[in-house]
Amino acid sequence: MLKRVTLKEVAARASVSYQTVSKVINHKSHVTGETEERIYAAIRELGYTPSYTARSLRSQRSNTIGYSWQPSPPDQANPILDEFLQSMFRTAETCGYYLLCFPYHGEVSRQLDTYRDLIDTGRVDGFVLSVVNYGDPCVNYLLKRKFPFVAFGHLDDLQTFPYIDVDGGLGLHMAVDHLLSLGHRKIAALAWPEDSRVGNNRMDGYFNAMHEAGIEVQPEWVQRGVGSYEVGFNSTLRLLAMPEKIRPTGIVAMNDLMAIGAMAAIRQLGLFPGKDIGVTGFDDAPTARYLNPPMTSLRQPVSSIGQNLMQRLITYLETGVYPEPVGELVAPQLVIRASTTGVETGELSN
Amino acid sequence: MLKRVTLKEVAARASVSYQTVSKVINHKSHVTGETEERIYAAIRELGYTPSYTARSLRSQRSNTIGYSWQPSPPDQANPILDEFLQSMFRTAETCGYYLLCFPYHGEVSRQLDTYRDLIDTGRVDGFVLSVVNYGDPCVNYLLKRKFPFVAFGHLDDLQTFPYIDVDGGLGLHMAVDHLLSLGHRKIAALAWPEDSRVGNNRMDGYFNAMHEAGIEVQPEWVQRGVGSYEVGFNSTLRLLAMPEKIRPTGIVAMNDLMAIGAMAAIRQLGLFPGKDIGVTGFDDAPTARYLNPPMTSLRQPVSSIGQNLMQRLITYLETGVYPEPVGELVAPQLVIRASTTGVETGELSN
Repeated sequence: MLKRVTLKEVAARASVSYQTVSKVINHKSHVTGETEERIYAAIRELGYTPSYTARSLRSQRSNTIGYSWQPSPPDQANPILDEFLQSMFRTAETCGYYLLCFPYHGEVSRQLDTYRDLIDTGRVDGFVLSVVNYGDPCVNYLLKRKFPFVAFGHLDDLQTFPYIDVDGGLGLHMAVDHLLSLGHRKIAALAWPEDSRVGNNRMDGYFNAMHEAGIEVQPEWVQRGVGSYEVGFNSTLRLLAMPEKIRPTGIVAMNDLMAIGAMAAIRQLGLFPGKDIGVTGFDDAPTARYLNPPMTSLRQPVSSIGQNLMQRLITYLETGVYPEPVGELVAPQLVIRASTTGVETGELSN
Repeated sequence: MLKRVTLKEVAARASVSYQTVSKVINHKSHVTGETEERIYAAIRELGYTPSYTARSLRSQRSNTIGYSWQPSPPDQANPILDEFLQSMFRTAETCGYYLLCFPYHGEVSRQLDTYRDLIDTGRVDGFVLSVVNYGDPCVNYLLKRKFPFVAFGHLDDLQTFPYIDVDGGLGLHMAVDHLLSLGHRKIAALAWPEDSRVGNNRMDGYFNAMHEAGIEVQPEWVQRGVGSYEVGFNSTLRLLAMPEKIRPTGIVAMNDLMAIGAMAAIRQLGLFPGKDIGVTGFDDAPTARYLNPPMTSLRQPVSSIGQNLMQRLITYLETGVYPEPVGELVAPQLVIRASTTGVETGELSN
């Protein structure tokens, strides 16, 4: 175990009192230049470094931000985790902060215990939350405790807190408009259950775009389920078994994995995605471009969101004021590939 | 900003001295039951919690483990990051530790500055390293400082440190044996450059398996490059343009992305992976099963590695002794799918 050099040892080496060393290194006292030089020589010789925990005890600050996230199921990769974490801790580092990662607990009381413990022990100065949902217990708890946090995600009700969120409604509007521009009119949606805040935001964009195009959405076109490959696959088989009059020719999915399931179902029926049925995903996971056919999807500006969230939180911690605007919606980008156009884009250098 | 309740306030409320409160909560003194009750009542009423930084100042311990990793290129997902992080911080939590994540810096001096700073400020008690390579500067630095660490990865030379690593050689041996059992004899390898420690371990398994089968490896069968889709794609086009006598019918790749590129090249030539040319990947990324065809790949036991590494490190921090064995190689699992057998496994419920 590394033995830390103490202030006492520095004092002994410099032949001054402990108090004198402490005052000099905290810039609280002036001593003769000769004494100061002797103290700094002792510090160098012994390799003394001021203890971080001692400093943070004085400032009551840890310079640490906490972040927790829901683990992906084993058959799914979190498409944005690496980029989001990297952008957060890189930004934190430039401000002298670090990121503390801790487990997500599904059980609410356990989850709140973890947040309480991190706050009460002074481990973190603030939190980044993600995937905020209706009545989110963490949001309520942190608001009640008046503990600093920012969120990747927002709520529509009056409860306000600093956030950035991707405008999922705008994204689905863009996806539907893209399919409309390719001549599709019967466009179905692979949606999450109705208690998903993120899902409902996205579906608003679907309904609005269809309404603006003067198309009446058939109830059967909205297929709901968890965002898995299987749900995407089975929902698409149901959609493509509908009578010709309402049988969709375009499908927008709330995430990439459901869209991948949809493409597999289309191929199983002997059809080809992008030629027979247009399909769009959401997230633009790195693998989307490597699928057969490469998949049209909505890309979230993950790096700039992570950077921006961390900057907002640290600004608040340093100044006591959140930068304006407190909440911000950012547009996703529609990345168009062969699963809607039927045409390879040449994105892959082959 | 949250104002922390101090020991002084607890003492005032309980009408005892600061020293008495301190001794009672640190279990260092016995006072009358009545006094103790009064102190704990004051603690409850004021909501006092012992300061983490104060405690860690006394113990000179942060109960925090540092971890940093190389970011994935934007067109690639890190297939094991989420699972590895979750397994590490879940294990850490059960022992009262947290995980501090910090940026990876390509420039060696900057990278060592980060490690030095985390050590010298007492921020972390130990590190987990991953992707250890020949002459790794972090390994050398931490060994020199005698600072606790464990590694996901090992080196073949005499320098010893606690590690767990996946036996990549065994994995490639299994992949080659699998292709041999399907009747392939001309088996090529999509390999990393020769300065990759991980790559060379894996290639040892390829060469050994071919040697044991009595097959002379043609130099052209070993195609090297960075582990990208493009390298996999272009290398496979070269392999399949070889004269019939040495034209491979099986391809083992050092990672999934090169194997995905290989499958695309095979399809572009009008052939079908698993029917005409057998292909195996390495990592078994969650998307491997969703490819067309689903891909045979080698899965690393990521969760148990993360858990085991964290347990070893914390055991050392708590006892001063690393549990035996200091180093351990674990076997990957060959997950067989249609990219080698041509047969759908029914793994996807459709």
